[in-house]
Amino acid sequence: MAEIQNKSIVSRDTDFAEWYTSIVKKADLVDYSSMKGSMIIRPYGYAIWERMVAVLDKEFKRLGHENVQMPMFIPESLLNIEKDHVEGFAPEVAWVTEGGKDKLEERVCVRPTSEVLFCEHYKKIIKSYRDLPKLYNQWCTIVRWEKTTRPFLRSREILWQEGHTMHATSEEALEETKRMLEVYENFQRDYLALPVITGTKTDKEKFAGAEKTYTIEAMMYDGVALQNGTSHYFGNNFAKAFGIEFLNKENKLETPYQTSWGVTTRMIGSLIMTHSDDAGLVLPPRIAPIEVIIIPIGKDSDIVEDAITNITTKLDEMEISNKVDRTDKTPGFKFAEAEVKGYPIRVEIGPRDLEAGHITLVRRDTLEKMQVSLDEAPKKIEDLLTTIQNDMYERALARRNTMLYDAYTYEEMKDIAASKPGFIKINWCEDVACENKIKDELGLKSRCIPFEGNEPDGKCAVCGKEAKCKIYFGKQY
Amino acid sequence: MAEIQNKSIVSRDTDFAEWYTSIVKKADLVDYSSMKGSMIIRPYGYAIWERMVAVLDKEFKRLGHENVQMPMFIPESLLNIEKDHVEGFAPEVAWVTEGGKDKLEERVCVRPTSEVLFCEHYKKIIKSYRDLPKLYNQWCTIVRWEKTTRPFLRSREILWQEGHTMHATSEEALEETKRMLEVYENFQRDYLALPVITGTKTDKEKFAGAEKTYTIEAMMYDGVALQNGTSHYFGNNFAKAFGIEFLNKENKLETPYQTSWGVTTRMIGSLIMTHSDDAGLVLPPRIAPIEVIIIPIGKDSDIVEDAITNITTKLDEMEISNKVDRTDKTPGFKFAEAEVKGYPIRVEIGPRDLEAGHITLVRRDTLEKMQVSLDEAPKKIEDLLTTIQNDMYERALARRNTMLYDAYTYEEMKDIAASKPGFIKINWCEDVACENKIKDELGLKSRCIPFEGNEPDGKCAVCGKEAKCKIYFGKQY
Repeated sequence: MAEIQNKSIVSRDTDFAEWYTSIVKKADLVDYSSMKGSMIIRPYGYAIWERMVAVLDKEFKRLGHENVQMPMFIPESLLNIEKDHVEGFAPEVAWVTEGGKDKLEERVCVRPTSEVLFCEHYKKIIKSYRDLPKLYNQWCTIVRWEKTTRPFLRSREILWQEGHTMHATSEEALEETKRMLEVYENFQRDYLALPVITGTKTDKEKFAGAEKTYTIEAMMYDGVALQNGTSHYFGNNFAKAFGIEFLNKENKLETPYQTSWGVTTRMIGSLIMTHSDDAGLVLPPRIAPIEVIIIPIGKDSDIVEDAITNITTKLDEMEISNKVDRTDKTPGFKFAEAEVKGYPIRVEIGPRDLEAGHITLVRRDTLEKMQVSLDEAPKKIEDLLTTIQNDMYERALARRNTMLYDAYTYEEMKDIAASKPGFIKINWCEDVACENKIKDELGLKSRCIPFEGNEPDGKCAVCGKEAKCKIYFGKQY
Repeated sequence: MAEIQNKSIVSRDTDFAEWYTSIVKKADLVDYSSMKGSMIIRPYGYAIWERMVAVLDKEFKRLGHENVQMPMFIPESLLNIEKDHVEGFAPEVAWVTEGGKDKLEERVCVRPTSEVLFCEHYKKIIKSYRDLPKLYNQWCTIVRWEKTTRPFLRSREILWQEGHTMHATSEEALEETKRMLEVYENFQRDYLALPVITGTKTDKEKFAGAEKTYTIEAMMYDGVALQNGTSHYFGNNFAKAFGIEFLNKENKLETPYQTSWGVTTRMIGSLIMTHSDDAGLVLPPRIAPIEVIIIPIGKDSDIVEDAITNITTKLDEMEISNKVDRTDKTPGFKFAEAEVKGYPIRVEIGPRDLEAGHITLVRRDTLEKMQVSLDEAPKKIEDLLTTIQNDMYERALARRNTMLYDAYTYEEMKDIAASKPGFIKINWCEDVACENKIKDELGLKSRCIPFEGNEPDGKCAVCGKEAKCKIYFGKQY
C-alpha cells in the first residue's frame, strides 16, 4: 500500500485522537458552533447519513415496520413510570423548565430515548391480538447531556433511529430483538465494511429497563471498542408498568412483550476510525455519497471534455455516483483533496494520457494507480468498486482479528491490557464483582458474551470459580 | 356527487373544527400524548409526510441545495445577536435550564428556526466569492411554545424543512427567494391539488428580521386562510449583525445577501381542510401513500384470488401503490374504512361481479361507482388517478374562487366580513394604521399583496387616501 501523508493531518499512529479530529474537520464532515457538545453535520457528512438512512429504512419497511413521530419532549411524570429506566436516564437529560415567559408547572425533558412515549401510545392503541405485532420505528434526534463529547462518537445531540415493537409472545419479541441486531450486523458488514462481534451485554451494561441487551461491538484501528448498535428485549417490564393489555384469541387479557433497537450517527465515527488513514477519509463504495471523482488535467482541451462526457454518461447509466472537479485549483491540490474526502476511485483524465490511449484510475483505499483505456474504464470502475468494498472489509477483519486475545488468568489479562490494545476474551463466572474488578483495576469494560464461541473452557479468569460463559472485555469510546 | 355521511364523523357544515379533529383521529393520522401541545404522528400520517419530503427534497437537490444538520439548541447569547429576530421569537421558545443535575450557566432554547445557527456557521465557511452561493437546507423539528394548538395547524413541535442560502448579490438572493416560493406553489398545486395565492406579506406580518416575506396563502373549505409556506429575503441584516464578509473578484470585502424558506407538516392540515368530506379523508393520488385499496368480497374464492393477483401484479408494474384489505371485517365495514382513510380508488372484487365479467371501481373524491372488465382495469385505474388528481384541483379552485371578494369601501368590507367567509381584496394605502384597524375591528389579518392583480383601482378602502396596492385580508388558522 502506497504511503501518503497529508501534511495537515496528524498521523494516526502518533496521536489517534488528534488524527480523528483532524479527519472529521478536513473532510468537511462536521463543524462546531457556540452550542457546546453539539455538532454541525456538514453536507458531506450528512450525505453519508442520508445513505445510511435510505438503506436501513428500506430494510425496516421490507420487514414490516412503519415509521411514526413521537413528541420530542417527555413530561417528568411520564419518564418516572418505569423505575430502572428513569434511574438510568434522569442523570443525563436536558430539562425544559420555561416556555416563552412562563415557568412550566411540570418540567419536561428532551427525549433521551422514547420507550415511555411509545408505551403510553401503545396502551391506547393495543386492545386485541389483532393489533399485534406493532412494528414501529422513528428517525429523530435525541439528547443526552454528556460532559465530554467527540464528533459522532459521543455528543449531546444524536441523530438516530429507534425501533419500538410489541408482540403477543416473548418468543416473537426475542426473535424480533435478534432479527434487528442481524439487520444491523448485515448492514455494517455489507455497506460499511465493518467486522463486528455480536453478543449479549452483561446485566451491568444492559439498557436501563431491559431484560436483555444484544449488541454489535466494533473495534477501531487503535483497538478500542465502539458499541455500534443495540437491540433490547424488555419482556413485559414496561408493558406492566404502563398497564398495556390485549385480549387474546381466547378473549383473555394478556400483557404483550416489547423490544427496542437503535443505531446512530456514531456509525460514521466507526467508519472513520476503522478505514481512514493519514491521507484522509476512506469510504467504502457502497456508502460513499460520491463513488468516483473525475479530475480533468490541462485546460480547455476538447479531447479531455469528450472523454469526460463519455465516461460520466456511462457511469450515470450504470448508476455509479460521480462528480467532475471543475474548480480552478491545481491538479495536485485536487488529488490531495480527493484523498482527504475519501472518494473510492479517482479518475485522472489528461490530453497526454488520452493520446497514449488511456486514462488513470487511482484506488483511494490503497492509493494504487492503474491505466486503462477509455472504453474499458466504466467496466473496470464497476469491478474495482466491488473489489475495494471487499478488500476494505477483509483488511478490517484481518486487523481486528490480530487484536483479539484470550486470557486464562487475571495476571495474563493484566499483562495484555497493559501492553496490547484490543479485546480480551476470558472465562467468566457471571458475578458482577469480577466484572467490576476488571473495570476498576484494568480500565476495561465488558463488551459482550458473544453469540458464537461463548462456551467456557476453564475457570473464571478473575476469581477462579466455575465459569458460566466466555466474555469479551475492552476499552471503549 | 354521492353524499355519504360517516356516522362517527361530525358534518363539516355543522361544526368544521370538530369535523377536522374527528378526521385526523378517525383516519389514524395523529394521536395525543401526555405531552400537551405536541402530537404523535401515526404511521398513516407520517407516510403522507414522507411522500412530501421525498418530492420536495429531490426538487431542492435538483436546484443545487445540500442538506445539513445544525444543533437543535441555541444559546441565549446567540439568539440575541439580531434584534428584530430575538424580539419576534423569544416570547415563544422553550428554554432548557438544566442538564442532568446541573443548572446551566447559560440557558439554551430549542430552535424555533435556525437563522442564527446558519449565520454563525456561514461566518466561518464563507471567505471568498468562490464559496458563494451557499445553498443549504435542513429537515428537522422546531419548537414554538404555542398556547392553543391543533394537530398539524399549530403545535408546539413542528416537523419542517428550512432552507438557508447566502448569495453574492441582492438580485441573486431575491431570485432564490422567489424561486423557492415557486417550488412550493408548484408542489402544492401539482401534488396536493391546492390552489394558492402567492404574494408579499406586509411589514407587520413579515418574518422577524426579514426585509421581505413572500407567502403562499391557501383557503380552507370554511373560507379561513392557512399560510402554507413562506420564503424570506433578509438583505444583509443578519450578515451584518454576524459580521459575515467575503472577498469579491476584485479582492474587496463585501457582505453577502441571505434567504430562508420553509414548509411544514401544516401542509397535511391544509390537505384535509381543503379536500376531505363527511365520509372522511380525501387524498390526492399523487400524495396518497396508498393509491388503490383492493377489497375482496366473499371467502376463499379462487376466482377472486386470481383476479387479485392479476391486478396487483399489473399495478405493481405500473408503480401504482396498492394494498389488499385481508382483515376479517365485513365488506361494508371495509368500504367505510377505505372512505375514512381517503384511498383515491377502491376496487371491489367479488365472484358474482367476476362471473358477469367485471369488477367495481369507486372514486373516493366523488364516491362514483363504475364497472370495468378485469383486463381494462389497470389502464382505467391509471387514467382515473389522473382524472381524480385534476378534478380535485379544479373543484378546490372553483370553490376558492367563489370565496374571493372585492370591497371598495370599509362598510362594504365590514358587510362581507360579517356575512361571508373567504378573502377580501381591497385597495390599500400601505399604512399600518389601516391594517391594524381591520384586524382590531373586523378580526381579519392581511394575507398578502398578491404578485398578480396588485394594481390599485381606487382609494384605500379604510382611510380613503391614495392607494398603493391591492391586498387580501382574511381570517386565519
